[in-house]
Amino acid sequence: MAQKNLSCLLYGAGEARFEDRPKPEIEDPHDVLIRISYVGVCGSDMHGGVTRKVSEKEPLVMGHEASGIVHSVGPAVTSIMPGDRVAIEPGFPCRRCKRCKAGRYNLCPKMQFAADPPRTHGALSRLFKIPEDFAYKIPDSLSLQEAVLVEPLSVAVHGVCLAELKPGQTVMVLGSGTIGLLAAATAKAFGASAVFITDINQAKLDFAKGFVDCTTFVPSLDATPEEDASRFCKDVNLEDGVDVVLECTGAEASAQTGIYALAVGGMFVQIGLGKTIQSVPMLAMCEKEMVFKTSFRYGSGDYEVALDLLSSGKVDVKSLISSEVPFERATEAWEKTRKGEGIKNLIRGVQE
Amino acid sequence: MAQKNLSCLLYGAGEARFEDRPKPEIEDPHDVLIRISYVGVCGSDMHGGVTRKVSEKEPLVMGHEASGIVHSVGPAVTSIMPGDRVAIEPGFPCRRCKRCKAGRYNLCPKMQFAADPPRTHGALSRLFKIPEDFAYKIPDSLSLQEAVLVEPLSVAVHGVCLAELKPGQTVMVLGSGTIGLLAAATAKAFGASAVFITDINQAKLDFAKGFVDCTTFVPSLDATPEEDASRFCKDVNLEDGVDVVLECTGAEASAQTGIYALAVGGMFVQIGLGKTIQSVPMLAMCEKEMVFKTSFRYGSGDYEVALDLLSSGKVDVKSLISSEVPFERATEAWEKTRKGEGIKNLIRGVQE
Amino acid sequence: MAQKNLSCLLYGAGEARFEDRPKPEIEDPHDVLIRISYVGVCGSDMHGGVTRKVSEKEPLVMGHEASGIVHSVGPAVTSIMPGDRVAIEPGFPCRRCKRCKAGRYNLCPKMQFAADPPRTHGALSRLFKIPEDFAYKIPDSLSLQEAVLVEPLSVAVHGVCLAELKPGQTVMVLGSGTIGLLAAATAKAFGASAVFITDINQAKLDFAKGFVDCTTFVPSLDATPEEDASRFCKDVNLEDGVDVVLECTGAEASAQTGIYALAVGGMFVQIGLGKTIQSVPMLAMCEKEMVFKTSFRYGSGDYEVALDLLSSGKVDVKSLISSEVPFERATEAWEKTRKGEGIKNLIRGVQE
Amino acid sequence: MAQKNLSCLLYGAGEARFEDRPKPEIEDPHDVLIRISYVGVCGSDMHGGVTRKVSEKEPLVMGHEASGIVHSVGPAVTSIMPGDRVAIEPGFPCRRCKRCKAGRYNLCPKMQFAADPPRTHGALSRLFKIPEDFAYKIPDSLSLQEAVLVEPLSVAVHGVCLAELKPGQTVMVLGSGTIGLLAAATAKAFGASAVFITDINQAKLDFAKGFVDCTTFVPSLDATPEEDASRFCKDVNLEDGVDVVLECTGAEASAQTGIYALAVGGMFVQIGLGKTIQSVPMLAMCEKEMVFKTSFRYGSGDYEVALDLLSSGKVDVKSLISSEVPFERATEAWEKTRKGEGIKNLIRGVQE
Repeated sequence: MAQKNLSCLLYGAGEARFEDRPKPEIEDPHDVLIRISYVGVCGSDMHGGVTRKVSEKEPLVMGHEASGIVHSVGPAVTSIMPGDRVAIEPGFPCRRCKRCKAGRYNLCPKMQFAADPPRTHGALSRLFKIPEDFAYKIPDSLSLQEAVLVEPLSVAVHGVCLAELKPGQTVMVLGSGTIGLLAAATAKAFGASAVFITDINQAKLDFAKGFVDCTTFVPSLDATPEEDASRFCKDVNLEDGVDVVLECTGAEASAQTGIYALAVGGMFVQIGLGKTIQSVPMLAMCEKEMVFKTSFRYGSGDYEVALDLLSSGKVDVKSLISSEVPFERATEAWEKTRKGEGIKNLIRGVQE
Repeated sequence: MAQKNLSCLLYGAGEARFEDRPKPEIEDPHDVLIRISYVGVCGSDMHGGVTRKVSEKEPLVMGHEASGIVHSVGPAVTSIMPGDRVAIEPGFPCRRCKRCKAGRYNLCPKMQFAADPPRTHGALSRLFKIPEDFAYKIPDSLSLQEAVLVEPLSVAVHGVCLAELKPGQTVMVLGSGTIGLLAAATAKAFGASAVFITDINQAKLDFAKGFVDCTTFVPSLDATPEEDASRFCKDVNLEDGVDVVLECTGAEASAQTGIYALAVGGMFVQIGLGKTIQSVPMLAMCEKEMVFKTSFRYGSGDYEVALDLLSSGKVDVKSLISSEVPFERATEAWEKTRKGEGIKNLIRGVQE
Repeated sequence: MAQKNLSCLLYGAGEARFEDRPKPEIEDPHDVLIRISYVGVCGSDMHGGVTRKVSEKEPLVMGHEASGIVHSVGPAVTSIMPGDRVAIEPGFPCRRCKRCKAGRYNLCPKMQFAADPPRTHGALSRLFKIPEDFAYKIPDSLSLQEAVLVEPLSVAVHGVCLAELKPGQTVMVLGSGTIGLLAAATAKAFGASAVFITDINQAKLDFAKGFVDCTTFVPSLDATPEEDASRFCKDVNLEDGVDVVLECTGAEASAQTGIYALAVGGMFVQIGLGKTIQSVPMLAMCEKEMVFKTSFRYGSGDYEVALDLLSSGKVDVKSLISSEVPFERATEAWEKTRKGEGIKNLIRGVQE
Repeated sequence: MAQKNLSCLLYGAGEARFEDRPKPEIEDPHDVLIRISYVGVCGSDMHGGVTRKVSEKEPLVMGHEASGIVHSVGPAVTSIMPGDRVAIEPGFPCRRCKRCKAGRYNLCPKMQFAADPPRTHGALSRLFKIPEDFAYKIPDSLSLQEAVLVEPLSVAVHGVCLAELKPGQTVMVLGSGTIGLLAAATAKAFGASAVFITDINQAKLDFAKGFVDCTTFVPSLDATPEEDASRFCKDVNLEDGVDVVLECTGAEASAQTGIYALAVGGMFVQIGLGKTIQSVPMLAMCEKEMVFKTSFRYGSGDYEVALDLLSSGKVDVKSLISSEVPFERATEAWEKTRKGEGIKNLIRGVQE
């Protein structure tokens, strides 16, 4: 078994197979091999993007949210050693292009991102190879299950950092899914004076209230985004609008509501992935002299900050972990996520 | 005549009348009265906004691009004196609200902006009252006609400053009207390595080439914005896209082309006033981790910078001045602008 | 008594007298009169600056940290009304100069700052006149004594904002006096991952530990600043140095220690007022490509943020209030502060 | 000769020897070998730093300002090919540390900088090995001699970028040596409204006037820095001080003069390398709420911008090139520079 590398590959929508693939070898002196402990299921695993791009001929090892234990390290590795428990940052940039050198490696055109078809296989294997500086040692206080959540928390951290949140600002988070919850908790930890979370699902908002000190709002299905925004501002007593909006749903109407609710001179960050073409209230945007940013994955420093939030207890993700299945039953975790069951469903790594 | 204040009022679309209105009086010790020398016609004067809001009962004195000579000053005025030639910044903020105190007075909710119905009359009068610090003394080298152009140049300066243009960046300016031309010249003066101007009107682009060192591009009426953007990038040899886009038309397709042409991590500034609701390529925006800003009028420091650009000769607006009519024939200047004749059509102030 | 305005004036070092001065009158429609409730004693009240500039001919009403109750308001005032409890921002800018309009009114050359000789009298009077927007209504949860602390807390907020504190950064605060304590608490509230406080007085550090979650450090009197910095970095396990330094003592050796302890690329903010000429380790500064900023008082938005920190309970200043004396015994509060007794000593306003 | 690599090594102050060293080999697939064409002599080559650190046992190949022709390339190289003419960026970061990944690779603790003792040999050899992305192809319009100047121009660009120069600002450049001249030209190209250069050497200022549109100022040897600053502000008619100061001498008095001459809220960038310990007017700094930055070498994007300035003709360095000696007479170029003869003295590469 020691030479094998059991992996879970997707061959098409709903078509997962377990196969022994070659064990990765340390080539670059900075390489490390990780014995995967847990892989999380992300909503994006389920959606068109991946499943449409894999095929019988080009299957893909899934998994980009992962934690594990260092198995072996290359000769140049100094910061970690075999046995260390680590959170894994799953995208490896070229380090040489203009964007890498400018500190924005998340925008590297040669990025090798785990489970990004067709090029790059993911972490849902017994062993996974990464560069030393993308393995982050976790403190004893953190479980390997929690360490899986460093990935989505880094998405939230990246978006909140782009928002250039200034002390005392009010923050509206659109969407109470994993990213929305983590964005709200991050904004709070970074000094937001008040955080508001919206969702069309009241149960999710009820959960949110227990997860982070926040005020919740349910958009009306009958009202226009402008009307919703107006009701929101009245409800939360912000007649001038909210300082910062973090969009974490990707839904068109949600973004519109956020733009209308934003204060003049305000900051909007689109963290959720939007539609190909989407309508925005441009005239309102022009009159507000606002900033609309889009946030893509995570980059320089985000994993460190996310880990610090977890280590310090400022953000506690234990309650987000909903279930855990053994490696061989990985598809059950996908199925749960597809059905909207639980928040974060985990797959255990291959047992020795 | 000395006590009178001949003014040109709009009572409805195309319904202008000349009337003697009360001469303004210095009330605040910082007030100054300006003898208006020239008023420029702005495209926005012609469009729905203003004409729909004026009426037989609530007519409005027109004019927000203006220059003049100081007529008299309040007792606290120290920086200018009667006889000084000045450019006029035509919007007066409250100075007391959060936005004013934060240095963003252009976003003041109590802004009194010239010729902004229904509240505030414009400058198309014999005499116009403004606070001392909104009258900018012009150097001898600058004519009072050129001084009118400080207003649209400030619009361009404000947009280019929001773009946080970094040395060596490439800039695409969408639209070759007054604002587009001035934005291009401003970007060039502030260190852009290359400036590209687009317009559907080849004649305007021909003029642009003489006005500023630039490369021009004509979008195709048959192609999609994405195709146009792709052709643009090939034509100008920017395979990674352009660093900064300045949208100066307000047209939906134009903004879309700009977004597609933008480099990953790029900066887009919407200077033209967009439609109420507008479609944008949101998925492309998300994947680019771009910044989309809207620019509203001008504010702190913009007039000073615009004047410096003119005084130093870095921007020369003489060629933009197309015609000049006496006060009594003001409507001819509007008519010309409505027909698209000329670039900047001026109205002379009331002659003594 | 109702028409009188009992005030405490300084005529020279240690030479305070109580006099009835004319009751201030509302002149500008935005003026408000405040019935002073509490005035705090600031270290700077005691030092050369003020006492050297006042004289038998030009005495000065003292006091720039103050809270009170609205007594009467001008006709244009809308945000507060008689009876409201307020914190007072004690410096009133001209609102018209370049710096005011650029959002940096704390740098206004015409600033009228309370108890700033020789021009401007302070708040240690029965009634004090200020513009509406410099009176900040406090919530019921906050006492008028605590409201006095909004002033020093704003100094801390201003400095921390200048530091552009990024989430997860480590912060070293030099000095455990009022400003140091508040800067540490503010940095913590804004997401600092760890806060370190230094002081040569162990008792002050002991207090600090109870006031804010921090690690303390005592510089050695025998070591050089470089040695101290080196020991600090080892002690707190920051081999690359600290991300942000907030200097709150004004002492030369303290600033030097902070510079040596700073990480490459780090941010240093001098909040304490330094000596006329001071030595800095320039070569180390050059090799670190660091930013050294100086922070002057407080400005746009700082009072709002400080109030939010207090209202939300993120910063609790009750334990900083050491004593309270009646108006007539104001000099006792100064005496205490001069002797280093207590942290914040308060003077009660004139009793009706 | 083809297998040899003639190099010029420093064994101690003034002790240079020519030796055949092993020809570098392409190891990393991104490596390129450069046939050195020209090496410039930098003032810093002459000063203590280098000469004190080399020894009979640890001699060092000199040279960090260099241009050349690509000799051979590794298999992964795609952007350049043998025969290409290139400017060489002479410092190679690790690409893996926090600072590299944050876009500040000039601060990499593992930086391998050419001719930086004892670790890293310089470019004064027949062949020099660098990573592909540190070789910048130059346009036909640029000579290989001029390409040497990309290095000091990048120092200037880096400093001016750190200054966050805003359009229309005034800039004072302290020192009229190579870096000062290039900083002045760069500031001008990036939109400075006026540039002032100071130097104690009138001849250098006379040269400056021909090199860039500027006003010059000679500090008095008898006056204090504060007096000099005051006279400067009067002379150039800037009663509020200058917006940006770029210190390019490293002299203590010069920095002091610049700080006194700076406007309230202004920006000072120390580009020249200062003394170990240096005095600054701290009280004036505190009252100005200024920013004091130090600039270290150059980093992300600087070479591209410098090359763009040269290619576009915005900066023309031909007049800075004072002399040229063959490789075998390299020490003559050092001798000239030591004596202050010429501005940039070049050494030709080894002739085949």
